[in-house]
Amino acid sequence: MKKTKIGIGFIGFGTVGQGVWKHLQAQREELETRLGLEISFPRVAVRDLTRERGVSVPAEVLTADPMEVVNDPGVNIVCELMGGTTKAKDYTLAALKLGKVVVSANKALIYKFGREVFEAVKTFGGHYYFEASVAGGIPIIKTLREGLVANRFESIAGIINGTCNYILSRMEAEGKSYEEILHDAKKLGYVEADDRLDLDGWDAFHKAVILAFLAHGKWVSENDALVEGIRNVTLEDMHRARDFGYRIKLLGMIRRNFKTGALSLGVYPALIPLDKTLARVDGVYNAIKLSGDVAGTTILIGRGAGQDATSSAVISDIVDAMIGIRDDAHKFLTPSDIDACYRLGETARMATMDEIRSKFYLRISILDEPGTLVGFYSVLAKHGVSVARVVTYEHPGERRGTITLATYPTSEAVMERVVEELKTLPQILTAPLLLRIYEPTHE
Amino acid sequence: MKKTKIGIGFIGFGTVGQGVWKHLQAQREELETRLGLEISFPRVAVRDLTRERGVSVPAEVLTADPMEVVNDPGVNIVCELMGGTTKAKDYTLAALKLGKVVVSANKALIYKFGREVFEAVKTFGGHYYFEASVAGGIPIIKTLREGLVANRFESIAGIINGTCNYILSRMEAEGKSYEEILHDAKKLGYVEADDRLDLDGWDAFHKAVILAFLAHGKWVSENDALVEGIRNVTLEDMHRARDFGYRIKLLGMIRRNFKTGALSLGVYPALIPLDKTLARVDGVYNAIKLSGDVAGTTILIGRGAGQDATSSAVISDIVDAMIGIRDDAHKFLTPSDIDACYRLGETARMATMDEIRSKFYLRISILDEPGTLVGFYSVLAKHGVSVARVVTYEHPGERRGTITLATYPTSEAVMERVVEELKTLPQILTAPLLLRIYEPTHE
Repeated sequence: MKKTKIGIGFIGFGTVGQGVWKHLQAQREELETRLGLEISFPRVAVRDLTRERGVSVPAEVLTADPMEVVNDPGVNIVCELMGGTTKAKDYTLAALKLGKVVVSANKALIYKFGREVFEAVKTFGGHYYFEASVAGGIPIIKTLREGLVANRFESIAGIINGTCNYILSRMEAEGKSYEEILHDAKKLGYVEADDRLDLDGWDAFHKAVILAFLAHGKWVSENDALVEGIRNVTLEDMHRARDFGYRIKLLGMIRRNFKTGALSLGVYPALIPLDKTLARVDGVYNAIKLSGDVAGTTILIGRGAGQDATSSAVISDIVDAMIGIRDDAHKFLTPSDIDACYRLGETARMATMDEIRSKFYLRISILDEPGTLVGFYSVLAKHGVSVARVVTYEHPGERRGTITLATYPTSEAVMERVVEELKTLPQILTAPLLLRIYEPTHE
Repeated sequence: MKKTKIGIGFIGFGTVGQGVWKHLQAQREELETRLGLEISFPRVAVRDLTRERGVSVPAEVLTADPMEVVNDPGVNIVCELMGGTTKAKDYTLAALKLGKVVVSANKALIYKFGREVFEAVKTFGGHYYFEASVAGGIPIIKTLREGLVANRFESIAGIINGTCNYILSRMEAEGKSYEEILHDAKKLGYVEADDRLDLDGWDAFHKAVILAFLAHGKWVSENDALVEGIRNVTLEDMHRARDFGYRIKLLGMIRRNFKTGALSLGVYPALIPLDKTLARVDGVYNAIKLSGDVAGTTILIGRGAGQDATSSAVISDIVDAMIGIRDDAHKFLTPSDIDACYRLGETARMATMDEIRSKFYLRISILDEPGTLVGFYSVLAKHGVSVARVVTYEHPGERRGTITLATYPTSEAVMERVVEELKTLPQILTAPLLLRIYEPTHE
C-alpha cells in the first residue's frame, strides 16, 4: 500500500513552534510507522531569518514569507502559531481556501473570526484544529467534543488563564502584593505583551467563548459577557475569603439552563469553596470542571501554557489531522458537525442580569462615623439582599473602616443596583469591590 | 448523498445497557443529523425475556440468544455489556470475525483475552472500542491515546476502583470500621458479586493492565504485579497516615523508566500526601494522574462507575465507532496501531523488586517488654532501612504495643526481607502491615 505523504508547515516559529518541531522530529519515525505515513517538514516561516534558534532547521526550509508556507504544494498541514488576528487570519483563510488543514493555538483569532474560519472549512473542504487554543496540555476540546459527547453541559467552570492563577497563587502563598508578584511574572515572561489580555480577563474570555461555542453553539460577544480581571483583588480580600471558607481564583464560567434556554458566560475573580478541587489548583496549572447531564462531574487539570504543554496539544491535533488526511475523513468540524453546533445555539439565548444568580462577596471602604453602617445596610435591605457573613474592621490611626461580606444568592441585576446606590452614600470612600462566589451544583 | 445506516445491538442489558439505550434514544435524532447517519437498534439480547425493565424495548427486538445479535445483518455495532470472560469472549470474537465493531466495558475480558481480541481485529477487520472499561465517565483511554499522544508516560497513578474509594472515604469520614462500611456498600449494590474483584484489587488491576498496555505495549500478568486490596487497612492506619501527612487510597500505579526499560505495575493501598489532588478524591470518584514527558502532569477526575457515567463512556465509543463505519476508517486500533503498541513493549521489561523503590509505611503489633524495640530496629538497621517517622503506642490494659512508621525510600526487595525477618521475632504478635507511600515526581 502506498503511504500517504504529509507535509507539515509552520507559520510562526517562536517558543511553541520550536517545541512542536523538536518533539515531532523526535517522534517522526514512530508516528510514520504507527500511522502508515511519510511525514516531512517542507517549509517554516520565521520573522527573522538571521535569528539563532533553539532547534536546527535546514536553511532551505526557512522563509520569511508565510504565504510560501501556505502555497507550498508539499504542505498539507499549516501550523499557525504566530498569534495575532490580522495577518494570522489572512494566512489561515488562504490555507483553508486551498483545502489545507490549519492547526492553531490562536484563541483570539477564533474568538474574533471563528465564524468565518468555520465557514471557510465548510465551503472549501479544508479543516481546522484548535485543541491548543484552550488550556494548553489539557485535552479539553477533545474531551468536550468526543469523550463526553453524550453530555449536555449545565455548567463549565474553568481556571483557564495560567498567568492570573500564578499571580493569585503567589500573592496568597507569599503574602505579597499584586504589584510585586506581577513584576516578577513579567520578568519571567509569563505575561502577554499586551497585559490586558491576561490581567483583565480577555484571554480567559476568548477561551471561554470557544468552549461555549462548542458546548452550546453560540458565539458570545464581549457585550453579552461579564469580563473582569484580577487587578482589584487584594491580599486583604484573599485573607477574608479564606476566613469565609474560600479561595479566590480567576474563573471562566459558562452556565446553561436547558429549561429556559438561558446561557451566560463570565470571566471574573471568584471565591471558590476551600474543599473543592478547583480551589486547590495553583500556579500555572489550569483546570476545567464540566457538569454533564450523563457523566456528572468531570474535572481536568494540567499545565495551561508553556512550550511543552502547548506543543503536546498541537501535536495531538497534528496527529488527528494526519489521520484525517490519510483517511480523507476528518472526524469533527465536518460541515454537518458545524451545522449541528449552530443548531444547538438556536435554542440558546443570553441570560438576563436578573437570571444570573450567585452569592456575592462585597468589600467596601467607609468613613468611620455613627450611622455609616445603618446607611450601608439600608441599601442592602432595600434591594432585598440577605447577608450570610460579614466582617467589619477598623484601620488603626485612620478614620475609615472596611466592610467585607458574603451575601445569600441574588442576581447580578440586584447587585449592580446595590453597588450603584452604595456609591452615592456620602460615607463611602472608594467604589465597592464585588466578587462572585462559586457554588458547584454537582460534586 | 446516501446516509450510512448503523445498527446498534446489545448483548447484556443490565444497568449500563439500559442506560446506554435510554440516552441514545434521546439523542438519536441529533446524532443522526450531526453525523449524517441513520441509526437503528435492531436487536437486544437479555437474560430473561419476561423481566420488567426500566426502559421500553419493542418485543420483536428482544432475544434471549446473544448470537442472534451478533449474526443480525442489521447490526454493525455490538455493545457487549454482559460482563464475564467466557461467553462474552465467544460473542466478542464471533462479532469481530464478522468484521463488526464491538463496544465493551469489560475490563476483565480485555485483561484475560486482550491479545486475542486485538489479533482478531487485525485479522478480520472488525473493530473494538473499550473506553468504558477504565474509570467510567473519565475519557482516560481517549486522553492517553489521542489527547496526550505526544507523550511517553513515566508514571500513571490512578484511583480506579470506586468501591474501594467509597469504603475508604467513608471509614475515614465517619470513623467506622471496614466491616461496617463494607456491609453498607454491599447493601447499596456497590460491590461486585465476586467481592474479591473490588476488595482485593483485581478490578483495579485489570484496569491498570489496560492502561499499561496502551501506554507501554506490554500485557502485564498477575505474576508480574503487586496486587493488594484494602481488607487489612484499619481506621488506626488512616489516623496514623493523617498524622504523618497522608491519606490512604487504593492506587493503581504504573511506572516506566525509559532509560532502563523497567516497567512496574502495582495495585495497593497507598499513603498519598495530603496536599496532592489524588488525596482529595473521595467517594465513588475516580482520578488518574498522568505524568507525560511533554505535557507534564495531567489529572482527570470523574465518576468511576454507575449507570450514567459508564453510559457516557459507552456512547462516546459508539459515536467514534459510527464515524469509523461511516468513513470506513477507524482512527485507532488499526493493525499498524496495534503493531506500534506491541513495538513499544519491545523496549520494556518488568522491573525487578530491587528496582521498585518507594517510601513505606509499616504497622506492627508487638509484645510490650524490654528489648522488643531493640530487636525490631535491629532488623531495619540490618537491611539498611532508615526511618523517617515513627509512632509507638501502648494499648492500655494489654501487654502489647503498636509501632507505626514511615521509611525513607527503599526497595520492595528490601522491605520483603524486612517483613519476613520481622515475622520471626518472638515478640511480634501479628504479621506486619506494609503499605507504600506515593511520592509524585511531578506536580
